[in-house]
Amino acid sequence: MNLLVVGSVALDNVKSRAGYREEVLGGSATFFSIAASHYAPVRMVGIVGSDFPDRAVNILKERGVDLRGLEKVPGKTFRWSGEYADDFSTRTTLDLQLNVFEHFQPKLPADYRNSEYLFLGNIHPRLQMQVLKQFEKRPQLVAMDTIDCWITDCWEELGEVMKQADILFINDEELLMISGETEVYKAIPKVLDLGPRIVVLKKGAHGAMLMSRDASFSLPAFPVKDVIDPTGAGDSFGGGFMGWLARTGDLSLENMQRAMVAGTLTASFTVENFSVDGLLLLTKDKLIERHEEFRKVTIWKALNELKS
Amino acid sequence: MNLLVVGSVALDNVKSRAGYREEVLGGSATFFSIAASHYAPVRMVGIVGSDFPDRAVNILKERGVDLRGLEKVPGKTFRWSGEYADDFSTRTTLDLQLNVFEHFQPKLPADYRNSEYLFLGNIHPRLQMQVLKQFEKRPQLVAMDTIDCWITDCWEELGEVMKQADILFINDEELLMISGETEVYKAIPKVLDLGPRIVVLKKGAHGAMLMSRDASFSLPAFPVKDVIDPTGAGDSFGGGFMGWLARTGDLSLENMQRAMVAGTLTASFTVENFSVDGLLLLTKDKLIERHEEFRKVTIWKALNELKS
Repeated sequence: MNLLVVGSVALDNVKSRAGYREEVLGGSATFFSIAASHYAPVRMVGIVGSDFPDRAVNILKERGVDLRGLEKVPGKTFRWSGEYADDFSTRTTLDLQLNVFEHFQPKLPADYRNSEYLFLGNIHPRLQMQVLKQFEKRPQLVAMDTIDCWITDCWEELGEVMKQADILFINDEELLMISGETEVYKAIPKVLDLGPRIVVLKKGAHGAMLMSRDASFSLPAFPVKDVIDPTGAGDSFGGGFMGWLARTGDLSLENMQRAMVAGTLTASFTVENFSVDGLLLLTKDKLIERHEEFRKVTIWKALNELKS
Repeated sequence: MNLLVVGSVALDNVKSRAGYREEVLGGSATFFSIAASHYAPVRMVGIVGSDFPDRAVNILKERGVDLRGLEKVPGKTFRWSGEYADDFSTRTTLDLQLNVFEHFQPKLPADYRNSEYLFLGNIHPRLQMQVLKQFEKRPQLVAMDTIDCWITDCWEELGEVMKQADILFINDEELLMISGETEVYKAIPKVLDLGPRIVVLKKGAHGAMLMSRDASFSLPAFPVKDVIDPTGAGDSFGGGFMGWLARTGDLSLENMQRAMVAGTLTASFTVENFSVDGLLLLTKDKLIERHEEFRKVTIWKALNELKS
């Protein structure tokens, strides 16, 4: 299946207890597309400034990401600077410059408009809607992400996008904000009432949950021994998840559970290194190895003695 | 196998967004023993005052708990009052009266001293050690719990008990305190160096992890839709875990993973009701039903397409 992602492409400055990196590749569309590229072909829509380095373009190209939707315009690329607490429990944004991203109007090249699977990164809901409107017919699968500021500042526009979505990727805090509830299991049905038929809850070091009206599925995070930089972990999870679906073309619940695993494994590589470096070191063999290890970490044999 | 638990027996006042309950049965040994009684016979060592009601004794007796080690002395029973935040993220202790528990000296009836499996609830490490010393030969399996105040106030005595332990049940915060680390995966090897060969990390709503030198195993919590009172969830988890091991007599890693499941399922009943009420409503059929549901929530099929 053809997988299209729309989102931010950024240059980040990141500080964690493991070190400091300047002007490294970041942004939701970047992490998502490199992650997904390990499973299926990806098309990207985004915007960068004239300062966006060739080495960054080449990284994406080498991963086979279709960049015809990546606009390059005069001005500076979106920049984010952040710092993580030593235990990675909190992240502080030190600086944020929208730059060319401020006037981003996503434009889909003609043949992007037949993409079967779509991922709307956490950009302004008005832009998410603009993307949807450029499709001749609705994609088979529409997934979306959002962040707290759109929930508080653009509630109605966000609501319109949610109505169109099949899958909503979200974290705990955002889930509770959207629902006005204080507990996850009370929040879920309210969010499902707003449109998406599936909510994927991203819980960072505590793993992820998939919930629909009739089913729930939970996975712990992969046990990463040494976290270096969690930036982009959520988008890498989304990229692995959607990439897996695009690769297999199977939207059954059982295959979405396996997409959760693909997302979890993929994100585990991201956090082991700064920026997209972990995702670039990812190989098929490493993925297979980690898949086997994750089965050992999560799969248990039935307690047949319960019945005796 | 014979399973012995030593710990607190209390009368609790509990307030949560679901209501308020006064003078209800509580304490680590209480939750542990009722939980474990669903899997194997349990012997209890503890202390209560002359005010401890017959109805409470009868609850334990009806679950078949061997109470010959439960001393009744003049004075008042240990009392705890607490209140939960509406989202259950925090708990405030409003009042704590040690009462007869202050001078507790655990005494094992003669035939308790051959118990094969021992669980040392989170009492003072000096008392935990007194229990160990009453065994003629070391139990086959020694498991222990602790709390933050013993880590800060009785570090050396706690260290002596940890040297004797096979399994340490603990939460995130205690794990980091003991190790002096800020991250779980850095803390684990340090704690394993102190004695226990297995650490079971209790993460509440985020599930539980089992870690040894060579292996790790993670489980999410059972998806409880409506939490009423989380008091005793950790001890119920411990009771289900140890009860399962005592029932099966199998200390392999694979069976410990299944013990994690038994602990998880058992604790899910505890939090659905005040005090021990959820554990008393637990039946074999409900347990089997929840076991099937938990398999759906956690078990995933291998991603064979990774290799293609």
